[in-house]
Amino acid sequence: MEKKLENLDLDNLDIQILSILMNDASIPYTEIAKKLIVSGGTIHVRMKKMEELGIIRGSNLIINPQKVGFDITAFLGIYLEKGSQYNNAVEQLKQVKEVVELHYCTGTYSMFAKIICRDTTHLRKVLNEDIQAVKGIQRTETIISLEESIKRQISLT
Amino acid sequence: MEKKLENLDLDNLDIQILSILMNDASIPYTEIAKKLIVSGGTIHVRMKKMEELGIIRGSNLIINPQKVGFDITAFLGIYLEKGSQYNNAVEQLKQVKEVVELHYCTGTYSMFAKIICRDTTHLRKVLNEDIQAVKGIQRTETIISLEESIKRQISLT
Amino acid sequence: MEKKLENLDLDNLDIQILSILMNDASIPYTEIAKKLIVSGGTIHVRMKKMEELGIIRGSNLIINPQKVGFDITAFLGIYLEKGSQYNNAVEQLKQVKEVVELHYCTGTYSMFAKIICRDTTHLRKVLNEDIQAVKGIQRTETIISLEESIKRQISLT
Amino acid sequence: MEKKLENLDLDNLDIQILSILMNDASIPYTEIAKKLIVSGGTIHVRMKKMEELGIIRGSNLIINPQKVGFDITAFLGIYLEKGSQYNNAVEQLKQVKEVVELHYCTGTYSMFAKIICRDTTHLRKVLNEDIQAVKGIQRTETIISLEESIKRQISLT
Amino acid sequence: MEKKLENLDLDNLDIQILSILMNDASIPYTEIAKKLIVSGGTIHVRMKKMEELGIIRGSNLIINPQKVGFDITAFLGIYLEKGSQYNNAVEQLKQVKEVVELHYCTGTYSMFAKIICRDTTHLRKVLNEDIQAVKGIQRTETIISLEESIKRQISLT
Amino acid sequence: MEKKLENLDLDNLDIQILSILMNDASIPYTEIAKKLIVSGGTIHVRMKKMEELGIIRGSNLIINPQKVGFDITAFLGIYLEKGSQYNNAVEQLKQVKEVVELHYCTGTYSMFAKIICRDTTHLRKVLNEDIQAVKGIQRTETIISLEESIKRQISLT
Amino acid sequence: MEKKLENLDLDNLDIQILSILMNDASIPYTEIAKKLIVSGGTIHVRMKKMEELGIIRGSNLIINPQKVGFDITAFLGIYLEKGSQYNNAVEQLKQVKEVVELHYCTGTYSMFAKIICRDTTHLRKVLNEDIQAVKGIQRTETIISLEESIKRQISLT
Amino acid sequence: MEKKLENLDLDNLDIQILSILMNDASIPYTEIAKKLIVSGGTIHVRMKKMEELGIIRGSNLIINPQKVGFDITAFLGIYLEKGSQYNNAVEQLKQVKEVVELHYCTGTYSMFAKIICRDTTHLRKVLNEDIQAVKGIQRTETIISLEESIKRQISLT
Repeated sequence: MEKKLENLDLDNLDIQILSILMNDASIPYTEIAKKLIVSGGTIHVRMKKMEELGIIRGSNLIINPQKVGFDITAFLGIYLEKGSQYNNAVEQLKQVKEVVELHYCTGTYSMFAKIICRDTTHLRKVLNEDIQAVKGIQRTETIISLEESIKRQISLT
Repeated sequence: MEKKLENLDLDNLDIQILSILMNDASIPYTEIAKKLIVSGGTIHVRMKKMEELGIIRGSNLIINPQKVGFDITAFLGIYLEKGSQYNNAVEQLKQVKEVVELHYCTGTYSMFAKIICRDTTHLRKVLNEDIQAVKGIQRTETIISLEESIKRQISLT
Repeated sequence: MEKKLENLDLDNLDIQILSILMNDASIPYTEIAKKLIVSGGTIHVRMKKMEELGIIRGSNLIINPQKVGFDITAFLGIYLEKGSQYNNAVEQLKQVKEVVELHYCTGTYSMFAKIICRDTTHLRKVLNEDIQAVKGIQRTETIISLEESIKRQISLT
Repeated sequence: MEKKLENLDLDNLDIQILSILMNDASIPYTEIAKKLIVSGGTIHVRMKKMEELGIIRGSNLIINPQKVGFDITAFLGIYLEKGSQYNNAVEQLKQVKEVVELHYCTGTYSMFAKIICRDTTHLRKVLNEDIQAVKGIQRTETIISLEESIKRQISLT
Repeated sequence: MEKKLENLDLDNLDIQILSILMNDASIPYTEIAKKLIVSGGTIHVRMKKMEELGIIRGSNLIINPQKVGFDITAFLGIYLEKGSQYNNAVEQLKQVKEVVELHYCTGTYSMFAKIICRDTTHLRKVLNEDIQAVKGIQRTETIISLEESIKRQISLT
Repeated sequence: MEKKLENLDLDNLDIQILSILMNDASIPYTEIAKKLIVSGGTIHVRMKKMEELGIIRGSNLIINPQKVGFDITAFLGIYLEKGSQYNNAVEQLKQVKEVVELHYCTGTYSMFAKIICRDTTHLRKVLNEDIQAVKGIQRTETIISLEESIKRQISLT
Repeated sequence: MEKKLENLDLDNLDIQILSILMNDASIPYTEIAKKLIVSGGTIHVRMKKMEELGIIRGSNLIINPQKVGFDITAFLGIYLEKGSQYNNAVEQLKQVKEVVELHYCTGTYSMFAKIICRDTTHLRKVLNEDIQAVKGIQRTETIISLEESIKRQISLT
Repeated sequence: MEKKLENLDLDNLDIQILSILMNDASIPYTEIAKKLIVSGGTIHVRMKKMEELGIIRGSNLIINPQKVGFDITAFLGIYLEKGSQYNNAVEQLKQVKEVVELHYCTGTYSMFAKIICRDTTHLRKVLNEDIQAVKGIQRTETIISLEESIKRQISLT
């Protein structure tokens, strides 16, 4: 089991740095340093430590999918024929690039995925040709997002 | 209705720039320029244009929630008493900081949310005190993620 | 209770005329007459009789909804708060022009509707503003058609 | 992807012509011309263009199924054993003439069909002998329409 | 709690008499007596005892509902707004003569009913006007019997 | 298709006779004759006619199942592996004497049965050993009646 | 069938003894004897009798699972491929030590289990590797307890 | 949050003592001491520590409910009208002595209870009069255990 926050040497300063960059990764360290009234070097040291601890995974440019032609966000509840096919199904689903999130989950479904497609024609192709071709998947239930009302990172503070 | 990619002045170069930064927002423009064999100024111009077009929303530092003590990722299917309470419920759910994603959706549920909590005790508090206190929410169904097998951005290419 | 086919004076000729026009209402009576080896007057007489009996409701120009910008066909399972609100809900739903079919039905749902919308934004507006505003409707479940594989009239022969 | 309305050379006149004929395909062009204050030739030209563009599919005589002995309208939610059997199942269902509509859909079901039968005995035969004989269909859920309260075409205006 | 068979003075002869009459109530006691090699008086005595013990409720002429125009047998899963409305709902449902069986039950439904109607028009009227008018009933789910394959009494032997 | 009541030579007297005997099959014809102010011979003639027409199936002694030790009435929703196994499953279920009613039905289940058992131990045995052994049955859902509030025949008048 | 309480020689004293020890098995017989104003020997005789009758199964030290690191209590609804695999599945599930309760049940599920795990990682391993490896189990639905609000023995008095 | 096992001063000996007594609380400390090759005093010290740490809750005499006339074990999925009524509903359910376990849970239900009753008549009374009278409970779904195949404590080793 991974060690939790309370056991890590994260102090208040670390959390403040993270909180700033989780909202906007483009803010220069010097600006963060000024804001938190520490030296720029301190920011560098802390960031380096948190990267080494695996706390920081990287940074992403966030785009608006609809603006680049991806109109459909859908959630898939996936039923496997047998739960034991899970590991294998994950490997195959990694090849389906429209799948942007995949979870092993409690409840009715064996797995739960988030997919992003251009339009309903694209969605049908992904469901019908790509997802259904995955060995072990019995059937899927599709929920289509008609509006994304909230999209944000967790708040550490 | 928003204009789609095909109508925007996005060319192949724009898409290549986006693809690089969507995976790692920390790569300097000079490095991208070298990789794509254009000048650094071109990268700047293109990025500026895409920001103005609303294609780029910003950048996020990506952390590992479990490493900072957030062990539970859950999905909530939300039933409203009346569909007409949707707009109001969204406003109230924005105040619940554990809700990191919220969708208006097709299928059985009125809304579908993703929440991240520290542990099952925290999850119970969020469900019982915060979500259930939202006026208009009749009941919720909780799906807990036991493992996140895939987590990535859409592939533009 | 309405009288059934067996009690009506429909003979084989009537059914052949109907079958031809149900597939293509633009075929001239003279052509039908030639095909069925009767006089054009006979076709007129038979059509008149079937109109008077209420067998023929009229004729429709059939268009391709997608070609005129209606991309989304959806089915709605509708739950009423109380079954007794049915008649009233029907009247209100008649005002929602995107509803092209409505049924009172057995099974889980109180009512079942077919709606046609331009895109997912339009669908959300119809669901959220028009359908949910109908007094008596508690909630709806949406099924989106990703492809219409068969669309035809019943075969009388 | 098909081109949408906005990209087609459809103007207001085209839409008015369509709207009239979608409700009653038997109205003569001369009458439409008079109503819209254009020449009969214009109607002909416009109709021809819209037929060539695939906007107009044809015209149907609309009958009252109950008046010719078809008392039961039912909707079938169809579960496939494997989603990959979809294309094949469609071909087989085309042979079952009672199936008047078939959709590939989101939600719980793989496919969704509308069927019209004479009576419950006929419905049982269709379900039990024809639909269940289709290779790949695991089981079906039947919803029976007890009353069709709305039945109309989309409104273009 | 009622006393069970094992505590009653029912012997093998009683059970044989019951078994014969449960299948055909018109068989004369003299014939039963001959068959079971006892006196006719014995049959009378036993029958009287079983009537007094409440084992025998009476006898019914069994008709074929379809032959007298009752084509539809349906089962209704009934959801009450509040479980506490059960006793009151039962009283009201007794006034709906199409309800021939009613159960308080485990599982998803609060109550479970069997109803027999003339046709789907009659069924809609019963559901829409009679059942839905019952105070406390929130909604119902209808299952229609397409064929009754088995209909018999329990076998005591 | 069977001929309906309206086509049969049943008059008001026939229906009155049926109504009396459907509630109590033990009433002598002479008593019925007196009540309806006709001769006893008339009753005989009418009964004979209705037996020949298949309207009357026979008569049953009605017992109280709980009084003879049958405490559990349950309804079974039955899912078949394939709908095509229906006819075969019916034949096998006829061998399970605890099954007193069986229907082919619309809705979620393929078949719907009513069974009567002595106690929960007996029910488990019937479900686990007898029903589950039927080839083609995939799984069953059991609803247990906790109280039979209504049990009667249809009312013809 | 097992004999019931009413047929056993249990009197009021037996029930009082049981009630005391069901709440706290560590109370010495002498103390119970004093409380119930009988001799200690009487308590011994009664306890011996109830052990021989199979009424008393033994005694358990009750611990707080969370205090020894078992944070997750979950209920599993288990669907078997075929109901006939029940006996075999039980034997295999006995080997999965996290399963602390298992029931054959009515309703949607074939079997219903209670499992106790250390954390969600442990739960995933148990579900994915141990439960899913059981031959005959098709899939499971997991309900996680977020709080145990009541936990007690039945009250005999 | 409670401290976990790893942070407690529990060693291997503690766990061995617990394991023995969790299966049979009547084993004398002297016997445990002999088995684990430590002094009886050590057992006393360890038990005292674990009681003070809240690890040990007490001990129960375990009886066979069926042997004392409690034939029915049922699980109830409970839907609340509003999730916010949870705390209040718990207090009321504590007054219903047939409820032996109650959980706040993920999934479809708001709460999940285990109840033990004498027979189906008792179960109906508990459901209909006691549980349904609880303010805030909308409806319940009942699952009846037909056989308890496994019943044991967690294994610490």
